[in-house]
Amino acid sequence: MADTISFLKPREAVLSRRAAIIADLTELLPPECLVHEARELVPFETDAFVSYRRLPLAVALPKTTAQVAAVMKYCNRYGIPVVPRGAGTSLSGGAIPQEDAVVLGLSKMSRILEVDYANRTATVQAGVTNLNISEAVGIDGFFYAPDPSSQLACTIGGNIGMNSGGAHCLKYGVTTNNLLGVKMVLVDGTVIELGGKHLDAAGYDLLGLVCGSEGQLGIVTEAVVRLIAKPEGARPVLFGFDTSEHAGACVADIIGSGIIPVAIEFMDKPAIEICEAFAHAGYPLDVEALLIVEVEGSEAEMEAMLKAIVEIAGRHGVKTVRESQSATEAALIWKGRKSAFGATGRIADYICMDGTVPLGKLSYVLNKTSEIVDRFGLRVANVFHAGDGNMHPLILFNANDPEDAAKAEEAGNEILKLCVDAGGCLTGEHGVGIEKRDLMRHQYSEADLHQQMAVRYAFDEGWILNPSKVFPLDGRPAA
Amino acid sequence: MADTISFLKPREAVLSRRAAIIADLTELLPPECLVHEARELVPFETDAFVSYRRLPLAVALPKTTAQVAAVMKYCNRYGIPVVPRGAGTSLSGGAIPQEDAVVLGLSKMSRILEVDYANRTATVQAGVTNLNISEAVGIDGFFYAPDPSSQLACTIGGNIGMNSGGAHCLKYGVTTNNLLGVKMVLVDGTVIELGGKHLDAAGYDLLGLVCGSEGQLGIVTEAVVRLIAKPEGARPVLFGFDTSEHAGACVADIIGSGIIPVAIEFMDKPAIEICEAFAHAGYPLDVEALLIVEVEGSEAEMEAMLKAIVEIAGRHGVKTVRESQSATEAALIWKGRKSAFGATGRIADYICMDGTVPLGKLSYVLNKTSEIVDRFGLRVANVFHAGDGNMHPLILFNANDPEDAAKAEEAGNEILKLCVDAGGCLTGEHGVGIEKRDLMRHQYSEADLHQQMAVRYAFDEGWILNPSKVFPLDGRPAA
Repeated sequence: MADTISFLKPREAVLSRRAAIIADLTELLPPECLVHEARELVPFETDAFVSYRRLPLAVALPKTTAQVAAVMKYCNRYGIPVVPRGAGTSLSGGAIPQEDAVVLGLSKMSRILEVDYANRTATVQAGVTNLNISEAVGIDGFFYAPDPSSQLACTIGGNIGMNSGGAHCLKYGVTTNNLLGVKMVLVDGTVIELGGKHLDAAGYDLLGLVCGSEGQLGIVTEAVVRLIAKPEGARPVLFGFDTSEHAGACVADIIGSGIIPVAIEFMDKPAIEICEAFAHAGYPLDVEALLIVEVEGSEAEMEAMLKAIVEIAGRHGVKTVRESQSATEAALIWKGRKSAFGATGRIADYICMDGTVPLGKLSYVLNKTSEIVDRFGLRVANVFHAGDGNMHPLILFNANDPEDAAKAEEAGNEILKLCVDAGGCLTGEHGVGIEKRDLMRHQYSEADLHQQMAVRYAFDEGWILNPSKVFPLDGRPAA
Repeated sequence: MADTISFLKPREAVLSRRAAIIADLTELLPPECLVHEARELVPFETDAFVSYRRLPLAVALPKTTAQVAAVMKYCNRYGIPVVPRGAGTSLSGGAIPQEDAVVLGLSKMSRILEVDYANRTATVQAGVTNLNISEAVGIDGFFYAPDPSSQLACTIGGNIGMNSGGAHCLKYGVTTNNLLGVKMVLVDGTVIELGGKHLDAAGYDLLGLVCGSEGQLGIVTEAVVRLIAKPEGARPVLFGFDTSEHAGACVADIIGSGIIPVAIEFMDKPAIEICEAFAHAGYPLDVEALLIVEVEGSEAEMEAMLKAIVEIAGRHGVKTVRESQSATEAALIWKGRKSAFGATGRIADYICMDGTVPLGKLSYVLNKTSEIVDRFGLRVANVFHAGDGNMHPLILFNANDPEDAAKAEEAGNEILKLCVDAGGCLTGEHGVGIEKRDLMRHQYSEADLHQQMAVRYAFDEGWILNPSKVFPLDGRPAA
């Protein structure tokens, strides 16, 4: 990838004081909580976006909110950029550091502090993994709903930063819909609490604002999340169609009918072939588009919903309908879908885009996406959360060929602009990060951007928190 | 009520230029969109809180976003306070004007602009009433979920300002969970759009921030709201208990089991008696506490849920169980509940508090509430949204007796502090307004409040938008 204006110019005043800063941090943190040797810094030089790499100045791995506060207070006083990091699974470069930054990693704060079934909440430290929450309450019949593909590794702190989603968000919403409160360290080290174990909150909804703010408003160290009871049963059904148009129209019709399945996943032919070759999920290979529609509830509820959905699919000329007949078969259907990214990685390098469009525009955007990628002489596989219009075109290219890589990046940009022009937005669940920063002008007017930056200033006057992300580098107010 | 420090000192520079300001506004608005004669201003002097009254300087009733922008640009330039107003149904004084303010009423912007079933959205002007949305899409089997008691009159703009709820929010969430986008006029007249017909948004969640900001960040003129399909059926069941403790524990247990009914409403004995005398709903009079639990879905779903709920109620010594056997009976059960405020108004003056508490604390807070009210020699009736812990103690008093009124206000303040101390918050759905402004210090630390005010400044440097609300009058940064 082109590595040109990707970061703000490093602050010389910070770089020149590197040794002194590390010495100061040594006073603030126990030895095992500070990383500063070059070879130990390597694991922190990028995240799952991997297009850019920078060794940070140092990495702080605090164990307590008080330690986070001490580091923030110090860095804020001396104008040292701070890049918060969960598990580093960001697909938009949200956790990529810069040379003059202290990475603030939350991985040592990974305890579940309380589970409270009467209020259906869990209180957890920010470094706990998404899946750990569901595992801790699973035995009692509960789970935490948002399920990013990276849920085995990604942390709740990172999920809050990016307002992460997942396949099952169609019914249960994304992170912001499942977050009730946070403890957060402000840039000057002050600790505040937002929300709690109650709905709504007096005053402004700063909790909602913080969710999805990509670590630029403060460092979340604890979170209160909503727990949901596991349904009695769940059942995925496969629908094969002859064209993407039919599949897209079917999705819009299911949603338009008012039925809310737990998930509606869409795969086009290239995606079907890639996943089937890897997972042997039994996907039909003679169709152009596949929907995985999952319903849940009691046997009677599932049957009623499936009946209505099959009827809708019939109106759109569905070619193959396959209800899973067992838990094994259901698991296999999902295995195929969930392995999509890994399976694609076996056959080519790829970048995964993350635009969201109104449902009525699904097939239009799919067609235009093909046209764009064709024009660049590249290939694309589409596998995405169709029920909420969250598209994930995977653009295949050869990372060892700089020209190919540049084409992929350019095609990706055109696709995201297409999503915005179709009435959608740049991101569904991966965030803006570095990846989509310069496209923000396509989504927002100068007035919109100015208002967002004004809010950022109200939290971080010195612009030290994750400073190279979210907003275009040019046109920022002086920091 | 005591009418002491309820408003900021009027800006003399504004009051002294009243005639000139009205002349200027006449240039910006058609004649039918400007109200400035004293007798015509009377309907705008208060809202449903009615404890305070002020005649505003003038009332603007624009018909277009461009007119709203023109008024805002003008008022901002000359430092004239602006108080936005929907239908004036605020229970916390959110729409009460001040002498130096232009009231910006949205009542003439009441059109439904678009209904889009493929995306399950409606785009409406801010002055449309809550119920109008559901009525417009009801024939197609859809509705708009949040249902404040005032839904016949209250506007979607007001709902957004206060993040309004209602009895059915247990399942469907409050306004913020059902709002997808807004068009908003900033204080300087700039028009921005937040969100749209897609989930999530790139950049910060300013939409979430605006929802519940009580008109202090901008004037919402249009909104995109989510539509939901009507369930196949809905059925309320009455559960009578011998003690409030048993009823409260039953609520916590239903929620703790993971079942999510559409509504769980709670009435104590005084509330039961008041409502039964008015509505003849057939409520049992030999119990101390009543729950109305409503489930919805297919016949089979409802039966399964009811079976589980009845079993839980049995474990808490339920005395009376009555499933509604017909639509008429169901309507009657809800009529009793929905008439609670009106029926109470027949027998006494009352103030309605709006604290929210964690479910495990319901009976503790109910008992303490009784103790507080007893101590002041007053009476209380409790009728509230128990499923989400949103309490509504109605404190009965005689408004013609200033001493009684002062006692009611003091008791109310103690009750709200009790809610906060129990881990809850000052408001569930009515907002802070004037009523709870001075209690914000009890909920928030100075650092919390300072951060909220800093965000407000990022939108409205001159502090002209609804300036006397939400934050304590003392301790504000100079405006």
